[in-house]
Amino acid sequence: MNRTREAIAAAAAKLFAAQGFDRTSIRAVAREAGVDPALVTHYYGSKQRLLVDVSRFPIEPQLLVEQVVGGPRDAVGLRLATLVLGVLESPEGRGRITALVRAAASEPTAAEAMRNLIQVGVIGPIARALGSDRPELRATFAGSQFVGLVMARYIVGVEPLASAPADEVVRTIAPVLQHYLTEPLDRPL
Amino acid sequence: MNRTREAIAAAAAKLFAAQGFDRTSIRAVAREAGVDPALVTHYYGSKQRLLVDVSRFPIEPQLLVEQVVGGPRDAVGLRLATLVLGVLESPEGRGRITALVRAAASEPTAAEAMRNLIQVGVIGPIARALGSDRPELRATFAGSQFVGLVMARYIVGVEPLASAPADEVVRTIAPVLQHYLTEPLDRPL
Repeated sequence: MNRTREAIAAAAAKLFAAQGFDRTSIRAVAREAGVDPALVTHYYGSKQRLLVDVSRFPIEPQLLVEQVVGGPRDAVGLRLATLVLGVLESPEGRGRITALVRAAASEPTAAEAMRNLIQVGVIGPIARALGSDRPELRATFAGSQFVGLVMARYIVGVEPLASAPADEVVRTIAPVLQHYLTEPLDRPL
Repeated sequence: MNRTREAIAAAAAKLFAAQGFDRTSIRAVAREAGVDPALVTHYYGSKQRLLVDVSRFPIEPQLLVEQVVGGPRDAVGLRLATLVLGVLESPEGRGRITALVRAAASEPTAAEAMRNLIQVGVIGPIARALGSDRPELRATFAGSQFVGLVMARYIVGVEPLASAPADEVVRTIAPVLQHYLTEPLDRPL
């Protein structure tokens, strides 16, 4: 990525997260990035494409699978929770993912990007690599918990979850992810 | 509720769910309900108040607590999941709750209504009645799973979760709710 492209992506992530996708214009992104609006269109084509690019998960799927699956099976949930919370607790990662979740609530392109992130980008590959039955269904249940966490903790700010320490959130959702990804799906926990 | 008020609420629920809160005008709600826009303002004051009213959970908190807490403790998660899925699988309940979740992603009044629904309207009273430690934190974790379910299954449509049978969803999230509401929060499941 060149510098201008990067500046545009950073500006868009900031504005999408702060005011939502609908209320952010190409013009406002250009102003925030200090570039001409024509450059935004040149690099990204549309606001939708800009969002899809901005909200890409900052870890490569292949690396993610290795980090989560390569280790004791009974701590898969803990490793996945630790990794995703790490992204969500960094200002940049949080900005990108909250932007995506906010936009997905009303924007078809963003909804598609979210489906893609869950099924192809993050949890789907992990679920498949684990070799449990019905990996696609498992991935979407685990994904739903992350989406709900992003909404409740970072976007809507439901207390006391919103200000709970990150490591407490990790410990609390880890068994849930472990359940969704590796346990018989209708077994009482 | 009188008939006109009811017609306005039904029209608003339908439009909020179909096109989102931002893109729905008082005028459009009036048109859908077949009434004068002044009547919408007369009954509800603002679009924000209309949303809060429309997205109220259709079961009284007192009744909800009795139904979920009054029974074997090890099936609290199952009873809560069954009850909430019952609401979400009815067209009217689904319309109201999806409208709220969609709007909460970008609208402060809706975000407040969602915080209120989790803390006061539905899960908070159950968590407190169960007598576990840290009921407020437990309620928000359980709430986050429901919010994520609404986003993933009904709004964004992540497959195969979106078309999984409701009773399978109930069975799969029941142990998670049980964990959040009654188990030691950092115990491996």
